[in-house]
Amino acid sequence: MKKLYTKNNFYLAKSELDALSSALSESYADKFGVNLEEGANLPRRREILSVTGKLEELLFPGFDGGERYHLDTIEYSAAKLIEQLYSELTELTVRSFCYMCKKSGSSHDCRTEERSREAVMALLKALPELRKIAQSDIQAAYAGDPAARSLDEIIISYPAVKAIEIQRMAHVLYKHDVPFIPRMMTEYAHSITGIDINPGAEIGSGFFIDHGTGVVIGETARIGNNVRLYQGVTLGALSFPKDSCGMLVKGLRRHPTIEDDVTIYANATVLGDVTIGKGSVLGGNVWVTDSLPPGTKVVASAENLIRYSNQGKQEQK
Amino acid sequence: MKKLYTKNNFYLAKSELDALSSALSESYADKFGVNLEEGANLPRRREILSVTGKLEELLFPGFDGGERYHLDTIEYSAAKLIEQLYSELTELTVRSFCYMCKKSGSSHDCRTEERSREAVMALLKALPELRKIAQSDIQAAYAGDPAARSLDEIIISYPAVKAIEIQRMAHVLYKHDVPFIPRMMTEYAHSITGIDINPGAEIGSGFFIDHGTGVVIGETARIGNNVRLYQGVTLGALSFPKDSCGMLVKGLRRHPTIEDDVTIYANATVLGDVTIGKGSVLGGNVWVTDSLPPGTKVVASAENLIRYSNQGKQEQK
Amino acid sequence: MKKLYTKNNFYLAKSELDALSSALSESYADKFGVNLEEGANLPRRREILSVTGKLEELLFPGFDGGERYHLDTIEYSAAKLIEQLYSELTELTVRSFCYMCKKSGSSHDCRTEERSREAVMALLKALPELRKIAQSDIQAAYAGDPAARSLDEIIISYPAVKAIEIQRMAHVLYKHDVPFIPRMMTEYAHSITGIDINPGAEIGSGFFIDHGTGVVIGETARIGNNVRLYQGVTLGALSFPKDSCGMLVKGLRRHPTIEDDVTIYANATVLGDVTIGKGSVLGGNVWVTDSLPPGTKVVASAENLIRYSNQGKQEQK
Repeated sequence: MKKLYTKNNFYLAKSELDALSSALSESYADKFGVNLEEGANLPRRREILSVTGKLEELLFPGFDGGERYHLDTIEYSAAKLIEQLYSELTELTVRSFCYMCKKSGSSHDCRTEERSREAVMALLKALPELRKIAQSDIQAAYAGDPAARSLDEIIISYPAVKAIEIQRMAHVLYKHDVPFIPRMMTEYAHSITGIDINPGAEIGSGFFIDHGTGVVIGETARIGNNVRLYQGVTLGALSFPKDSCGMLVKGLRRHPTIEDDVTIYANATVLGDVTIGKGSVLGGNVWVTDSLPPGTKVVASAENLIRYSNQGKQEQK
Repeated sequence: MKKLYTKNNFYLAKSELDALSSALSESYADKFGVNLEEGANLPRRREILSVTGKLEELLFPGFDGGERYHLDTIEYSAAKLIEQLYSELTELTVRSFCYMCKKSGSSHDCRTEERSREAVMALLKALPELRKIAQSDIQAAYAGDPAARSLDEIIISYPAVKAIEIQRMAHVLYKHDVPFIPRMMTEYAHSITGIDINPGAEIGSGFFIDHGTGVVIGETARIGNNVRLYQGVTLGALSFPKDSCGMLVKGLRRHPTIEDDVTIYANATVLGDVTIGKGSVLGGNVWVTDSLPPGTKVVASAENLIRYSNQGKQEQK
Repeated sequence: MKKLYTKNNFYLAKSELDALSSALSESYADKFGVNLEEGANLPRRREILSVTGKLEELLFPGFDGGERYHLDTIEYSAAKLIEQLYSELTELTVRSFCYMCKKSGSSHDCRTEERSREAVMALLKALPELRKIAQSDIQAAYAGDPAARSLDEIIISYPAVKAIEIQRMAHVLYKHDVPFIPRMMTEYAHSITGIDINPGAEIGSGFFIDHGTGVVIGETARIGNNVRLYQGVTLGALSFPKDSCGMLVKGLRRHPTIEDDVTIYANATVLGDVTIGKGSVLGGNVWVTDSLPPGTKVVASAENLIRYSNQGKQEQK
């Protein structure tokens, strides 16, 4: 039999290794892009995965994780999970607040432990209410998708549920000004689902996104109740004001407000601080940068398609 | 050195933990979104990952998994994998059928074990044929993509192969009315590839999707042989009929039929129960809601772009 | 308590198992889609994950992996990682070159070990420079996105950083003609981020992609400095020349050149070997297949939307 290569075949000479590692270390000296224990000590992706997984498990026990639940002992399982989560998430939150405190060069007490505790407790206390809102989202999905056979199928398999509920949990931390963690949570959801909802977005109940890949919802977007989006919809910003030094002004409202009962079909784009009035319907691929009154329907005209038959004849459709 | 936070620093008081866990337990009492051993006992995502991984390994041995194969012993490796897969997948299928049986409140025997066995055996028996169809898909990719250097490169790295072949396997279970599992399999593929093909879609041989992110293919779509799609193409539904109680009618045909040899370029959208005739070509970004005769070519007109030069002059293109 | 199904409940009879595994083995006999130790022995996905993870860890230590770094010992951590990476990546590269060598039926020495060593050393030596370019990318992201609060937040959470920096590393191997591995690396990034950048694309410094899901950048695309793209942008090919046997001609230039300081908004499509001149701006959803002079601005006209108010009146916008 042909000799197989094994992992022990290829070595670097010591001099080569020294040259490579010292060149890299020099490049680490400015600390750019280096997460050091004694420095920023920022949250790591796998730590975010761990806490987000525990939060999802508390929201919908038994769907993702390995634990098996029984009705008469689920309170103990939940308590164990809450205890671990509290410890992990508070530690991450403290590290994140400390980073911002150091960065601002603040000389006064940043209250990092106190603020972390407040943020984490707010999220844990919100979970029963978030379960109710999740129920409204799932019922909206069932009512809006002929392919859905049961509520359980939606919880178990629809990517939008994962993306929306993780955003709702991240939003609680965002409201408490926790750095890094909310965005890392929604980017985890984005990587799994293709749905990118900034943790700052404010979203009403009964929210459904069908298919979802390519959806982008910006930081200052506001979404009412019973709104439905399809894949590829962007609720984005139109332009970014700069200050007198040419730097972007951060934190201004720059995304749409979508009122109750609006439906936006696939790949439509709504940009800027505009309001789409209650009950409006935006057709696929439309591009809207103005406010619309309640009950408006916008569709793309088919005028701009050119059709050729197989006889070579051309007809403007 | 600065004191580092460790995972042991943050605790909840017992009274706080009790309050949080009992509030959550109350919210679990209605069993909404709770997967209990003694209740529905629905498939878990990690169980679906395990069976889907084994199916992929049987289809293309040695590309994803850790096992190393030799030609003279591959039959034994395959037998071992089939044995494990049969056991795992049958158990998941039985649990899924039981859920639907209980839910329907049926008093007669739901034949869950018999139906599960039929479905799983049908899938295992189909694998050699599915390998032939996969070969046609991979050859279509090679013939259609100038960036592809070899058939192996396509198997090893193209996301469309993963998405299409998982859908073809899920479709066998779908045809046997297995609940949950087919959709969970295609949603796993969707999360990895950005390609969302409902397990109900019927797809001919020689099917290729280039790039793929954002592709959506609906439950009742039918796709002929040698069809090629690009990223962002939607084969979707236009509107959903409701019954007299205002509930969606489930199970009706509502998606396109794409005949043989059709090519649909990036981000085009085809909606409704329409037929795109053999050999037609749909250009990028077009939006089609009518049937098209064979050999039709539809492109977006460039009339609707407005162009400004850097002299500030505006010209309608 | 109700009897629970366990993994031991479902067995195949030996005769059934034999029939299934021998049918599959027959189908493996042509070796199509089978990765054998004594045959091609192609890289496996989990091997690519392992080397790509190590490369990311060397580029930005401490963000993804489990290792914890201290400033005074980071050189040793880096050396250890480089040593492991060198061994793993060289072995994969040798296997990949061997595959191509066998496939070409070449009778002369393919210099697989020498070429592998050159390619891997080139990549390792490039890492300090790639860290500088990554810094320019991250600063471009900060300057262009009002939602970004700090450079660290971008490194830690923005998918574009992952996709772009993995492509830049894969591109070094691509330039050394390494088969399989560059594309497998960028497809790994694609699966995590929805951003599909072919390893062949040549990309200048200060490159930013916001949100990113659905972006496609083709093999022969060239991108200047300080270019910014949004989600869903395609830099693709228009048509593929075939040779006299009807086979695609591989390796020709077929993708756009984007000059410095160009911005391309969401879901715009640029196709073919065209040049978008310095400082141009392409609006959302536009479709461009011609070259544009420097400083051109192209936007979609809103003329082709039809708007219905809730009074039923129709107005062309």
